[in-house]
Amino acid sequence: MSNVLRARRRLDLLQVVLFFVAVLLVVVADAGVTSQYRRKLEATVEMPLDADVFRVPPGYNAPQQVRLIRLRQPIDQEGTAMIVSWVTANELGSSTVMYSEASPDPEKMELRAEGTHTRYDYFNYTSGFIHHCTLTNLKHSTKYYYAMGFGHTVRSFCFTTPPMPGPDVPFKFGLIGDLGQTFDSNTTLSHYEANGGDAVLYVGDLSYADNHPLHDNTRWDTWARFVERSAAHQPWVWTAGNHELDLAPELGEHVPFKPFAHRYPTPFWYSVRVASAHVVVLASYSAYGKYTAQWEWLRAELARVDRAATPWLIVLVHSPWYSSNGYHYMEGETMRVQFERWIVAAKADLVVAGHVHAYERSHRVSNVAYDIINARCTPVRTRDAPVYVTVGDGGNIEGIADNFTQPQPSYSAFREASFGHATLEIRNRTHAYYAWHRNQDGAKVVADGVWLTNRYWMPTDDDIN
Amino acid sequence: MSNVLRARRRLDLLQVVLFFVAVLLVVVADAGVTSQYRRKLEATVEMPLDADVFRVPPGYNAPQQVRLIRLRQPIDQEGTAMIVSWVTANELGSSTVMYSEASPDPEKMELRAEGTHTRYDYFNYTSGFIHHCTLTNLKHSTKYYYAMGFGHTVRSFCFTTPPMPGPDVPFKFGLIGDLGQTFDSNTTLSHYEANGGDAVLYVGDLSYADNHPLHDNTRWDTWARFVERSAAHQPWVWTAGNHELDLAPELGEHVPFKPFAHRYPTPFWYSVRVASAHVVVLASYSAYGKYTAQWEWLRAELARVDRAATPWLIVLVHSPWYSSNGYHYMEGETMRVQFERWIVAAKADLVVAGHVHAYERSHRVSNVAYDIINARCTPVRTRDAPVYVTVGDGGNIEGIADNFTQPQPSYSAFREASFGHATLEIRNRTHAYYAWHRNQDGAKVVADGVWLTNRYWMPTDDDIN
Repeated sequence: MSNVLRARRRLDLLQVVLFFVAVLLVVVADAGVTSQYRRKLEATVEMPLDADVFRVPPGYNAPQQVRLIRLRQPIDQEGTAMIVSWVTANELGSSTVMYSEASPDPEKMELRAEGTHTRYDYFNYTSGFIHHCTLTNLKHSTKYYYAMGFGHTVRSFCFTTPPMPGPDVPFKFGLIGDLGQTFDSNTTLSHYEANGGDAVLYVGDLSYADNHPLHDNTRWDTWARFVERSAAHQPWVWTAGNHELDLAPELGEHVPFKPFAHRYPTPFWYSVRVASAHVVVLASYSAYGKYTAQWEWLRAELARVDRAATPWLIVLVHSPWYSSNGYHYMEGETMRVQFERWIVAAKADLVVAGHVHAYERSHRVSNVAYDIINARCTPVRTRDAPVYVTVGDGGNIEGIADNFTQPQPSYSAFREASFGHATLEIRNRTHAYYAWHRNQDGAKVVADGVWLTNRYWMPTDDDIN
Repeated sequence: MSNVLRARRRLDLLQVVLFFVAVLLVVVADAGVTSQYRRKLEATVEMPLDADVFRVPPGYNAPQQVRLIRLRQPIDQEGTAMIVSWVTANELGSSTVMYSEASPDPEKMELRAEGTHTRYDYFNYTSGFIHHCTLTNLKHSTKYYYAMGFGHTVRSFCFTTPPMPGPDVPFKFGLIGDLGQTFDSNTTLSHYEANGGDAVLYVGDLSYADNHPLHDNTRWDTWARFVERSAAHQPWVWTAGNHELDLAPELGEHVPFKPFAHRYPTPFWYSVRVASAHVVVLASYSAYGKYTAQWEWLRAELARVDRAATPWLIVLVHSPWYSSNGYHYMEGETMRVQFERWIVAAKADLVVAGHVHAYERSHRVSNVAYDIINARCTPVRTRDAPVYVTVGDGGNIEGIADNFTQPQPSYSAFREASFGHATLEIRNRTHAYYAWHRNQDGAKVVADGVWLTNRYWMPTDDDIN
């Protein structure tokens, strides 16, 4: 065999090897990951009622369940207002909030806002006095001390207002869903706190009170005491989930969302602008057919989004549109059919859902070509579409959803049946780092992390596909 | 050529001819019909306010807009109750209804029921006094005289109660949608009256008041005066359409269905049993996601249907699930995705929709095999499925929808852009005659008629496919 021939054969062999390596790389890059990590198999149980996290603050009629709530667009376009909500259990007390940039001492807080209160009955339960007080004309990126409970037991907290909206303002969101109040819930919240986000985008299902006999509404109270340690210091953006419906005709309770609506003075569909993000919150359990109020609102809202000012368009919804878990499979279809084409056309960056008690992240996919008779009904990868994540893995009493469909469909990039939380760190108008953290690791360990590029500013970048 | 050969050739020829005849028959039987009938091309205009059909009845505070409304299941399981509704314009007056089997003379009516009243404001409009009075313990198949307006101007009417539900009880329904109050609307109603149904299944969009400046609510009044000539003498089963939403944030009107809900004391989703039919009414513009009140109700309601007692399962909905008209194309998809598989599993006989201002009838088709990744998203013919009809051709101010998609899809059996109404004559547990009548013909001319066989009692019969 001549050297020339040998060289050619070596070259042929090299080409063949390179070809297979390339194929392997494509396959690895393309295939979705079903993580084989197994969480500990202990039962998911609620923390006992005497757990420290549920402790009623000491003092007669002490304010409890303190939480910050962002006002919706367009009422609070720039984010210079904040609703402070809390509950007093013994008597009405005061709905006043005192606040100050300068002094953490309630006696010396020079600003003052008057709130209102409400309460509700649910079967055999009567709520405490639920106070809602709106602070307005706040400065951006400013630390405020605030206090309530005047006349009896004063409690004080502090929070930092969000920065003025702008295209390159960095911000870190926590993404949490279906939290509940189990030991796992507590781990999730602690890990989120350790990771230090600036605000939480909460994708629904809060207390799971409705899993208790008579929808035991005291579980709404314990839950709000449990999350106070975060929610009193930074705003949580609320999404309504099915566990907020609290429909119980057998108890004479026919009004949907009664406890939730009294406790969380937020609409079911709305938006907030935060730093460089425009966050759209949708309502899976309200009407969204054409001509309905939500439909009319979303159409108008998407036209109001200014990607030059707030480049990151994030959508929150409880029931996911892309989930390959057998649990709640296809429940989001009816809303996807209605809204997906608008969300794709708007070039949304990220759609965050809860509902399914596991973690999943999609590729950039869309499924909007169907017209009944053309058979084009399969999700296709496209850089025009958002990434879909399901973070209904907060850790509630119903346990983990570990029955993923097999094989993993092509729209699914990563899925794992573990509890955890995610974060989205926006760096500037073009880049954001998304990370999911499972509870069995240290808080800062990233179990699934990807860089996202902005669909408005870098629409042709293939960031993760 | 021998005779034997000639005979064989003749036989061959006969076979060929027979084959082509058979092919032709299959093609004719299978292809959908897009009727080429063209309606007159005059504009569709509302009748003038001084038209006789809108006349306020004479006499001070005379009851007007009188109408009968069936109570929903399960409150009125057997159909022995009826709501009488009317409006007084000058002052409250009496909410009493007097009634009698024996006497058409209000003075001699021996039975009495006390009603309630309501009224509402809508921007700059204040409604009259809207009275609702429920008559109970009525006998079946019995003619009752009734009267209201005591103290001022008494008016009297009569109606015949529906027969006791039973599997072979004949009954004739009118199917009307999107009626409005044009000259065409009047023709539609007159033709229905000439065809003599026992009750109307009305599939939404009543007055089109919202097409007038400020949603001119006096148009709700004129409409109800217009239809009184039928609705005061037989019950109309109401479905909520998009023109009942009356959302007008620019007018400060944020509560959906405000005028409709005050005037028509009927839920948005409910059922009634009439003779041999179980009629399920769905709400296209309320929530129907999993876990919502409508979803929970429909699931339970379909389990309550007793086809042995009421063989005919009829579903009313405003926005059609199968329509091949370009107008409102695919608007019903989101609800179809949610509910179609239940309706097919329940072996419903007929689904009646409005919304699209034209007429269409489908073959028996279903599209319930889709699971996101299997690409099975094309409607297929199946004898298990209901027939879908769209009768949004009542004749309202918005005119005809004559932009059918081309070519006619395989699920569509007959479609025509003309105004008209349909009737469903149930003969017994196995057979019913469905007919559509266009307004340009004499009332009794059947432009599209088919015999339907019952899906419970004759599930394997290929009636129309």
